[in-house]
Amino acid sequence: MTRRSSGPAAAPVEDRRAGFLRSLDTPAAVIDLAIVERNIARLQRACDRAGVRNRPHVKTHKSVHLARLQRAAGAVGITCQKLGEAEVMAEAGLDDILISYNVVGEPKRARLRALAARCTLTLSCDSGVAAEGYARALAGRDGPTVGVLVECDTGRRRSGVPDPHAAAALARLVAALPGLHFAGLLLYPPDGDLAASAAFVAAAKAACTAQGLPLQVISSGGTPNRGRIGRLGETEYRAGTAIYNDRQMVRAGAAQPGDCALEIAATVVSAPAPGRVLIDAGSKILSSDLGGFDDFGELPDHPQARLYRLAEEHGFVDVSACANPPRVGDVVRVRPNHACVVANLVDRVWCTRDGEPAGTLLVDARGRVS
Amino acid sequence: MTRRSSGPAAAPVEDRRAGFLRSLDTPAAVIDLAIVERNIARLQRACDRAGVRNRPHVKTHKSVHLARLQRAAGAVGITCQKLGEAEVMAEAGLDDILISYNVVGEPKRARLRALAARCTLTLSCDSGVAAEGYARALAGRDGPTVGVLVECDTGRRRSGVPDPHAAAALARLVAALPGLHFAGLLLYPPDGDLAASAAFVAAAKAACTAQGLPLQVISSGGTPNRGRIGRLGETEYRAGTAIYNDRQMVRAGAAQPGDCALEIAATVVSAPAPGRVLIDAGSKILSSDLGGFDDFGELPDHPQARLYRLAEEHGFVDVSACANPPRVGDVVRVRPNHACVVANLVDRVWCTRDGEPAGTLLVDARGRVS
Repeated sequence: MTRRSSGPAAAPVEDRRAGFLRSLDTPAAVIDLAIVERNIARLQRACDRAGVRNRPHVKTHKSVHLARLQRAAGAVGITCQKLGEAEVMAEAGLDDILISYNVVGEPKRARLRALAARCTLTLSCDSGVAAEGYARALAGRDGPTVGVLVECDTGRRRSGVPDPHAAAALARLVAALPGLHFAGLLLYPPDGDLAASAAFVAAAKAACTAQGLPLQVISSGGTPNRGRIGRLGETEYRAGTAIYNDRQMVRAGAAQPGDCALEIAATVVSAPAPGRVLIDAGSKILSSDLGGFDDFGELPDHPQARLYRLAEEHGFVDVSACANPPRVGDVVRVRPNHACVVANLVDRVWCTRDGEPAGTLLVDARGRVS
Repeated sequence: MTRRSSGPAAAPVEDRRAGFLRSLDTPAAVIDLAIVERNIARLQRACDRAGVRNRPHVKTHKSVHLARLQRAAGAVGITCQKLGEAEVMAEAGLDDILISYNVVGEPKRARLRALAARCTLTLSCDSGVAAEGYARALAGRDGPTVGVLVECDTGRRRSGVPDPHAAAALARLVAALPGLHFAGLLLYPPDGDLAASAAFVAAAKAACTAQGLPLQVISSGGTPNRGRIGRLGETEYRAGTAIYNDRQMVRAGAAQPGDCALEIAATVVSAPAPGRVLIDAGSKILSSDLGGFDDFGELPDHPQARLYRLAEEHGFVDVSACANPPRVGDVVRVRPNHACVVANLVDRVWCTRDGEPAGTLLVDARGRVS
């Protein structure tokens, strides 16, 4: 094996990344664009292989640029969890949007109507109150009816009608409302066994079809379940976290550590006692989501360190087990438990590619809380 | 007793407030300005009575307008936890600022220098690395030296030098650095017994004085301890949460429920099963701070309801014990566990006064994460 010697050896990627981190004004959320692009492609491939349309959830990144990358990779459209997210995306030209959330309340009706005029909009609901609100919002407008998915609770015990009979009844109501058409089912199955979800979908499908309401769309989602895309007969898939991944996804077996694109760069600001350092990333940038862990994130370069507590602007790190604990002034990387809530706490993320700086990206829909 | 009948009876404040909430596009953070003003005055009175200068911490509200109200009520200046917060406040003319945080890292030095030029700045540190960074940031500038407080850990086990001897040693180092002067001590005593904090302060004061370094400032803080302002011989007090209060402060005995100025208005978006409703306030507006509770906030109008879980955009509410549970479309109030992290999640707060709308207020320093 020969080593090329046509120029000075490039610094290894780890050294370049360390240099980049040191240049940042911390705390800062950093994404690796190479990993992001790989994650986008991977989700698209999984959907393509299953013959399921990819409709990634933008709640994780809230970025117009990243939504466009997802579309360019093959997504048929995007999913939003908030009306405000959908407005930002539609404004930027994302033209096929599903809102996987009950949009309820009179103040939202004019906004819904305006949104329906500027993109192909699909809504979802789990109650007649929500569906009737959609009909009032869209009353008397020109143009095609808006498709509505009936949200089904197949075991997660969040929102969604509780049984296939209720799904069929709500489908009937939706189909009878002016300006709307029943488009199918929306589910967010629990992680783990899909048998109950499959039985629910089959029964709801039969009940809807029996009353002359065929399903155009069965929309399922969730990054942890993406290894089983298509198992429920779904036609579309919504995964959000897959673009960034995080510590929860690694634990769930949905990602490897090297698939985690989002990290926080933090500076050690204090080492007040043996075994304890404080970093400048607290709950106001990491959030206090435990996500089933008993600590608030991990330090990939200091695997023995434990981020055991957060104050608003301090992360408390137990470094007593570290051979080379970080010192005051050092910049460390933190892999968060939950990427989606971290991105929601910053106006922009810093970008890197193979350790080189690659600009910043606005979190365009951050702050659109309603 | 006669009843005035010169006009139609005004709607009671509760009715007006309910009407205001229904007009909001939810979720929305709402503050009651009458309560805010009362809370500002109350903290000022507590400081005045103790003969202690009031330097409220703006981390809770991050609002220029509210900082100005605090100054107008008698505060000598403000406290910030981030350089970015201080920059926003100085830009708006707040001219006397303490940063109660180790400001560490080369990228922050030019910012520190610029900040020192536009306000009376006091810094704090618990290490020589931080102090030397301040000296490098301020090297060779004209104008008075910048005061530096030595941060002391009197029992909270966060940052701060661990003992009075270390405090005196760091005071000596600060005093020897160009561009700086040693100004005193900064502490954030643990809630509860103050005996250890008092002993620490007395010993540190003696050790500093003995080496010719008198204390101009002893800065203490914390809303839970505000009933004991002055007990540690402090000259200044930093309280943040006191302006809004929250569920934690009520539990700590530092506030009554009626002193809580910040609430989230949320809409019931789903009632999928008996005993469970979902509201449109999840961890992206309430944060997932438990703050020692086992739930994520309380619903003042539904005291039997339990906000037992959060997804990003859903709050899961157990209403099985409620006589009149809220229904889909109803707007409910949520009192958060921790006001400071909620304000950090929104760009603006809606204001009310006695139930009437009173405009909105920008959270000016939100997003200034570094």
